[in-house]
Amino acid sequence: MAHDEFSLIRQWTRRSDGQEGDGLTVGIGDDAAVFTPTPAMEVVACCDAMVETVHFLKETMRPSDIGYKAVISNISDVAAMGGLARYALVSIAVSPGWSADETSQIYDGIYAACEAYGVRLIGGDTVSAPDALHISVTVLGEVEQGRAIRRSRAQPGQAVFVTGHVGSSAAGLHLLLQQKNAGAPVPAEHLPLVEAHQRPAAQVAAGRLLLASGACGALNDVSDGLASELWEIAEASRVAIAIDAGLVPIREEVSSYAAQAGKDPLDWAFYGGEDYQLVGTAAADSVDALAEKFAAAGIPFTVIGRVEASAAKPSVCCARAGRKMPLPKAGFNHFGRRE
Amino acid sequence: MAHDEFSLIRQWTRRSDGQEGDGLTVGIGDDAAVFTPTPAMEVVACCDAMVETVHFLKETMRPSDIGYKAVISNISDVAAMGGLARYALVSIAVSPGWSADETSQIYDGIYAACEAYGVRLIGGDTVSAPDALHISVTVLGEVEQGRAIRRSRAQPGQAVFVTGHVGSSAAGLHLLLQQKNAGAPVPAEHLPLVEAHQRPAAQVAAGRLLLASGACGALNDVSDGLASELWEIAEASRVAIAIDAGLVPIREEVSSYAAQAGKDPLDWAFYGGEDYQLVGTAAADSVDALAEKFAAAGIPFTVIGRVEASAAKPSVCCARAGRKMPLPKAGFNHFGRRE
Repeated sequence: MAHDEFSLIRQWTRRSDGQEGDGLTVGIGDDAAVFTPTPAMEVVACCDAMVETVHFLKETMRPSDIGYKAVISNISDVAAMGGLARYALVSIAVSPGWSADETSQIYDGIYAACEAYGVRLIGGDTVSAPDALHISVTVLGEVEQGRAIRRSRAQPGQAVFVTGHVGSSAAGLHLLLQQKNAGAPVPAEHLPLVEAHQRPAAQVAAGRLLLASGACGALNDVSDGLASELWEIAEASRVAIAIDAGLVPIREEVSSYAAQAGKDPLDWAFYGGEDYQLVGTAAADSVDALAEKFAAAGIPFTVIGRVEASAAKPSVCCARAGRKMPLPKAGFNHFGRRE
Repeated sequence: MAHDEFSLIRQWTRRSDGQEGDGLTVGIGDDAAVFTPTPAMEVVACCDAMVETVHFLKETMRPSDIGYKAVISNISDVAAMGGLARYALVSIAVSPGWSADETSQIYDGIYAACEAYGVRLIGGDTVSAPDALHISVTVLGEVEQGRAIRRSRAQPGQAVFVTGHVGSSAAGLHLLLQQKNAGAPVPAEHLPLVEAHQRPAAQVAAGRLLLASGACGALNDVSDGLASELWEIAEASRVAIAIDAGLVPIREEVSSYAAQAGKDPLDWAFYGGEDYQLVGTAAADSVDALAEKFAAAGIPFTVIGRVEASAAKPSVCCARAGRKMPLPKAGFNHFGRRE
């Protein structure tokens, strides 16, 4: 944990003081945090970074959105294992372009996400940076012993499903960049897309439902775009996956904005990312029961394809307008252009 | 966890493949890692960041040193709770000034530190950055239920001790900066100081010994300098601490280099930091037995002062050449100058 000479840092994390109890023995403010794991649960741990200019711009994300999304992307990773998020550690490197007030607002977003998902901030580090703002979040969660859902467990014959809708975050980003260039506010009818980009939700309830069902094969969260996630499942499970483009769940607002912007909404769904929905596979004979459970929980659940076969050379194909084509992996690549 | 389209990232962390077992259910390469906590142990979690130009320069740290030290600083935080480090998650943001080969060497250092302390790398994120390289490490460890050593447990009458020697890392840094400016290699007799700066050790054995003794009050690791750490203990425990400058353990090489450079070695000990020694308090009547145990373990252990009293207004004083003076907090401040 940071050794905080600077009183502002303690001020920013003061909301975590006195939160010990309920399994947390030592919270924020010592060299490290200490907690007692829940009996019969395993610990789930993940870590994701967001960097100014690479993952966000000041013009497209308010400071609180940055903190919020950095936490959500990690809660989403825990959800993709079927787990529950419990604790967060946040490391922020603040560059001179960010005021103390803006940094405080980043913490507002961090705490808002934590509160929304029952997560406690138990540690971190706040340091200075020369140029861009960096935020790196670790989330620790728990999952029933031996029950974590792996991305490598897709089986031939299983259905491929996705929760919620995809492409909304990318549509929102496109909109924000357009409006930024035009210097105009976002029209009210498009605000849900902006919300999808700035304040995404993590699909914890869906992950828990899938784990409880026992019917889930592989599972991933949609952080880098549907194509990339399907490829990860195909490669980890060594299977061939086929999906139908016409089944990919895209919000009506996204389709209409895409038409207006001259864009293909499927491109946002496949290669946009940051939707934080869950994509996975499930036993074909359990899909109807699963769909009913999701309907009862009010969570959209859509079958978009199937696992066709085991494959030494994994693949992902997509049928569109009657033609079946390989689906390029592409997605956002931090070290270069789309493949 | 990162979704790694880029094969280099997988290549860098390939050494973590197939390390499941012995409590680790899911290692690197899924949305999150999953492990089974050891029965009757609590989980210890901490997170520290290092930023190019703020915490290190390419000229003073080889890429492998950067990775090594980023892991050590976190293992040190776990040691300061009396715990054992088990797992690490590493987030690296790589800027254009760093080649793939240099990034690979950072991972070499990460793995070297992990191997030296029995830690497994179970996750992380590798992304691009516009300017400076950032590395943020989370280490997860374990400590016996209810036994973690807090910095808030110093009691009046306890002795104040420090392990090993302090000021060596700052002396090494001073030396590296001097040699960099002079364009000359570091003389052989000074290499131990450079080693102290570039490849510090974490005092895990000392922390475990202190925990087992049951005699330890408060404990901190020396990441920001002895003065800052003593102040943290004084403030968290609400006590007045008095130390004797003449007792502060400084290596002979540091003193002789300081004399040569016209510097005060105590300034490095108090305000240099990154020594990763442990500073703490222990029951006065247990100090002799503790010193014997440390001697048997081959770890230097030095009493440098005592906790004088409980204090609503915490303080740290230092006696030097017969005069007792308040010890300024100072230390490195990420958001401004020394106080």
